[in-house]
Amino acid sequence: MSHAAETLDGWYSLHLFYAIDWATWRLVPEADRHEMVEEFEALLRRLKAEKDNGKGDHVLYNITGQKADLLLWFLRPEMKDLTEIETAINKLPIADHFIPTYSYVSVVELSNYLAGDSNEDPYENPHVRARLYPELPDRPYICFYPMNKRRNETYNWYMLSMEERKKLMYDHGMIGRKYAGKIKQFITGSVGFDDYEWGVTLFADDVLQFKKIVYEMRFDETTARYGEFGSFFVGHQITDLPALFDINSK
Amino acid sequence: MSHAAETLDGWYSLHLFYAIDWATWRLVPEADRHEMVEEFEALLRRLKAEKDNGKGDHVLYNITGQKADLLLWFLRPEMKDLTEIETAINKLPIADHFIPTYSYVSVVELSNYLAGDSNEDPYENPHVRARLYPELPDRPYICFYPMNKRRNETYNWYMLSMEERKKLMYDHGMIGRKYAGKIKQFITGSVGFDDYEWGVTLFADDVLQFKKIVYEMRFDETTARYGEFGSFFVGHQITDLPALFDINSK
Amino acid sequence: MSHAAETLDGWYSLHLFYAIDWATWRLVPEADRHEMVEEFEALLRRLKAEKDNGKGDHVLYNITGQKADLLLWFLRPEMKDLTEIETAINKLPIADHFIPTYSYVSVVELSNYLAGDSNEDPYENPHVRARLYPELPDRPYICFYPMNKRRNETYNWYMLSMEERKKLMYDHGMIGRKYAGKIKQFITGSVGFDDYEWGVTLFADDVLQFKKIVYEMRFDETTARYGEFGSFFVGHQITDLPALFDINSK
Amino acid sequence: MSHAAETLDGWYSLHLFYAIDWATWRLVPEADRHEMVEEFEALLRRLKAEKDNGKGDHVLYNITGQKADLLLWFLRPEMKDLTEIETAINKLPIADHFIPTYSYVSVVELSNYLAGDSNEDPYENPHVRARLYPELPDRPYICFYPMNKRRNETYNWYMLSMEERKKLMYDHGMIGRKYAGKIKQFITGSVGFDDYEWGVTLFADDVLQFKKIVYEMRFDETTARYGEFGSFFVGHQITDLPALFDINSK
Amino acid sequence: MSHAAETLDGWYSLHLFYAIDWATWRLVPEADRHEMVEEFEALLRRLKAEKDNGKGDHVLYNITGQKADLLLWFLRPEMKDLTEIETAINKLPIADHFIPTYSYVSVVELSNYLAGDSNEDPYENPHVRARLYPELPDRPYICFYPMNKRRNETYNWYMLSMEERKKLMYDHGMIGRKYAGKIKQFITGSVGFDDYEWGVTLFADDVLQFKKIVYEMRFDETTARYGEFGSFFVGHQITDLPALFDINSK
Repeated sequence: MSHAAETLDGWYSLHLFYAIDWATWRLVPEADRHEMVEEFEALLRRLKAEKDNGKGDHVLYNITGQKADLLLWFLRPEMKDLTEIETAINKLPIADHFIPTYSYVSVVELSNYLAGDSNEDPYENPHVRARLYPELPDRPYICFYPMNKRRNETYNWYMLSMEERKKLMYDHGMIGRKYAGKIKQFITGSVGFDDYEWGVTLFADDVLQFKKIVYEMRFDETTARYGEFGSFFVGHQITDLPALFDINSK
Repeated sequence: MSHAAETLDGWYSLHLFYAIDWATWRLVPEADRHEMVEEFEALLRRLKAEKDNGKGDHVLYNITGQKADLLLWFLRPEMKDLTEIETAINKLPIADHFIPTYSYVSVVELSNYLAGDSNEDPYENPHVRARLYPELPDRPYICFYPMNKRRNETYNWYMLSMEERKKLMYDHGMIGRKYAGKIKQFITGSVGFDDYEWGVTLFADDVLQFKKIVYEMRFDETTARYGEFGSFFVGHQITDLPALFDINSK
Repeated sequence: MSHAAETLDGWYSLHLFYAIDWATWRLVPEADRHEMVEEFEALLRRLKAEKDNGKGDHVLYNITGQKADLLLWFLRPEMKDLTEIETAINKLPIADHFIPTYSYVSVVELSNYLAGDSNEDPYENPHVRARLYPELPDRPYICFYPMNKRRNETYNWYMLSMEERKKLMYDHGMIGRKYAGKIKQFITGSVGFDDYEWGVTLFADDVLQFKKIVYEMRFDETTARYGEFGSFFVGHQITDLPALFDINSK
Repeated sequence: MSHAAETLDGWYSLHLFYAIDWATWRLVPEADRHEMVEEFEALLRRLKAEKDNGKGDHVLYNITGQKADLLLWFLRPEMKDLTEIETAINKLPIADHFIPTYSYVSVVELSNYLAGDSNEDPYENPHVRARLYPELPDRPYICFYPMNKRRNETYNWYMLSMEERKKLMYDHGMIGRKYAGKIKQFITGSVGFDDYEWGVTLFADDVLQFKKIVYEMRFDETTARYGEFGSFFVGHQITDLPALFDINSK
Repeated sequence: MSHAAETLDGWYSLHLFYAIDWATWRLVPEADRHEMVEEFEALLRRLKAEKDNGKGDHVLYNITGQKADLLLWFLRPEMKDLTEIETAINKLPIADHFIPTYSYVSVVELSNYLAGDSNEDPYENPHVRARLYPELPDRPYICFYPMNKRRNETYNWYMLSMEERKKLMYDHGMIGRKYAGKIKQFITGSVGFDDYEWGVTLFADDVLQFKKIVYEMRFDETTARYGEFGSFFVGHQITDLPALFDINSK
């Protein structure tokens, strides 16, 4: 019998972070800049249209600070769909002015630490399906960070028993519930896909809630002893893409 | 009951570090260089004007050594204001000659480790408000560094009790008080916003005080056992921006 | 007597990862782009032809995310063959638009932790030969990651006895067997050749199997206590190279 | 009472490391190259002239290996003097062909671990002054490295008592004395100024003495248990700057 | 009495690793490319000529994988000779197409852990001299890696007694002897010169021997508990430099 908790896996996930190369962008004649932005928007519209066929979703945010300007987060039924989307973006003329700064490959994941002992196929459960194949929220702020569970010499998550992990994850989940209306959380698994084990993507109306939940969780034993974090990215929703790329709009 | 100490949170904070690309800047015709510097100054004046409406503040320093030439530190009521300011800088023609070298996203924070048990709403207290929404000092030297509290196997800050942390922070604070007139200190929290947990920004007339306070604190148990530091940046106030950018002024 | 387990070593291995520089590629006139892609395909055909002479094999994948666009994995009888192939790629005009992002130098390896006590020369055993000098599978997805065995202060793989390691590797191997039909696994040894001790290359029809096997193994003591990982790369097979390089094909 | 040992602090210190961009330098017409080198030499002469007014000193070395070509080490009475010197170098046309590779910001420091209990003001002691405001030696070889004292879980320098540190530093200093005539050592403190706690700059006629002293000290408990090192840089004095920059001089 | 083992030190050593910038190299007209390669070869011939005067040696290899294309390893009587050679290479027009990727500064070193108690001056012993001032072998494959001895909290090489280290090094040396005819090994010391404590350079006819010796040694306590490694570089001897640089030679 395996010690691993089985997971439920939904849509594949690709977070793409790009800095805009403003110096070369400024050299592009204005008419060409307009056309390039329009092509970018047309691609995004085409990709959004696939959502109506239940084929995934995406969001677009403006990252604060120098880690990136753009975050594009895509969900799709197949990993190869994501590779194709990434290539389609790279082939856009506007992408000549995008500098790749970070990316994350994962899959929407529901842990079953909290699962009951039903005989039901969870993939048929509509509540489960809504979380595995989610519609992404329309909120002003986003937060993304990748994380591991530590495998230190004394505290090693993967040497704990299933019961210990279940107990720790239960307490951890209780903190999350307190933020139910304030934060919308998505966990994507990346073991075997990218350098950390999970990606965490949070949405909120009030950016301060990201700090509150992450700080409160840091005192929870699951995080305090076993959490290991990559970079944190925070950003604001892009509602007017042409304005962002308009170098005359201040 | 949560083990986390509640914090008070004020203005959002963005530290932007840039190196100047002197080689490409020298290629710009002198008249254009003048115009670009003037546009940069005009933006800074416009942003400073918002200060008069209680909408934040900013300072500008020249970093010593190769980590950066410019440090722009902005405070604003909303995170999105900071994203907009960063984009406005990026859209300046002079920014074609800025190389981003580091940035830090956080929020002005007052820990309540030292708070009393008043029933008063601290956000209504004018002393608290003056620290959450501060006017930045006009001092010749600045020091910035990000830091974490360690979560090691033996010494793990986040597994200490509230009482232990309160005691350690009290002793730590006592050192800070000794430097009251010499150093003006700002703590900004970045859990969930950036890669370290806090940013520390210090101002002084005498740059040596930065070394004295950081060195003295290193022997304090809070820092000695639990402190983990990122890069340290030190700089001198820019009082004549055109002179800095004037390649003929030596 | 040495404590090291003897290994069987087959073909030398070179994983080459490149990002495509789309911005400069777009500047190449269309006719030249076609010619460059044809030269690249001609080289790959020539190299594939060597396979028919039992002189190695190669595969070509499109990596998901910003770590790379192309993964070329080559196997050859001599290390110098790999250096020559790499130089031949570098000399292709299309390679002016390839940005090297990672590479891995190793040799196909069979550990003999599981070996019996036969007097037979394993290099004469056709089953062993088929694994040392393998034909690479034709599957839609690939996963590559380098790894070490840890040498920590408490848990140090290289201070374990041969029996302990044999036991741990046996249990570890049992997990691998469960994925027999779903995943095709290749272990290449890189001690003395590259920065990690082994490279792991997996092939599957279903990309999710990579996550399942790596996650399940993480709870196995061999990995939980002793595994140390580099970056994970996942990609999709390139079946139409001209389409990938055609900037008008979306 | 503070546990920190008080330090005596002298001139501020800036180590600037640059690689020469030979490819762009070669494109400069010979007459311009001559003029640029002359301007660089004129700046260095002007800065050396300040030495005669007791306003600091500087040296210039050619670093071995690819970490840098040039090391310029400046000492000045005020930190802002160093920022100005760095800016003056950046504004030289020749600096378009300098690639910044590392820098270090610190202040000449005398630890008083070894100090007696005199009532004398050490800043008035001529022997102390000669070390705080030193004339830099004229020796063929230089070595620079930054270092920390470790704060590990078991061995934490900053949790030792003053007596323990005094004892360890005394033994450490005894090794240094053995190299008195062979090596001239300068310690600069960088707590609060740069990423390590100290910089060590050594001068010698015989470069092998750097290896001997650093290796011997590595067995001393202060270093063996508590020393943590950054990069090591070694270089040879530049006595003919025009010859170094003359691309026709081999 | 010092706890450090005295070392014998011979010629100074510089490993230079460069990637070839094929994209810019291809832009050079063919006649110029020929001339540049000839100048490079002329410099190498001139430097080889110094070998006849007992003034050092050098070798040239083609590194496998993306860490570098060229490895030039130089030995010379004085450190400054190496700085001059590096500058002479940088001043070659062909070096505009070399991208520095790594370098290592050290000195040929014989540890005297294994030395007897003779009264003889070892620097007069012809066997010792042949190892301190060696003629480099003419073998098809090279391997280079830098390494440290660990100073961990439990296992700290530099806190072991001379007897313990002597015993460990003796066992370690016994493994090396088994590879006597297969591998030619050179140890260069870099304490105080570069970021690791030693460089190891191996030569072999059969590249697989590098993996065998490094893997076998990993189970030896000296390495298993105390060894800490940098990057590993492996390469094949360049016997036809013009062919390597001929972009039409596939």
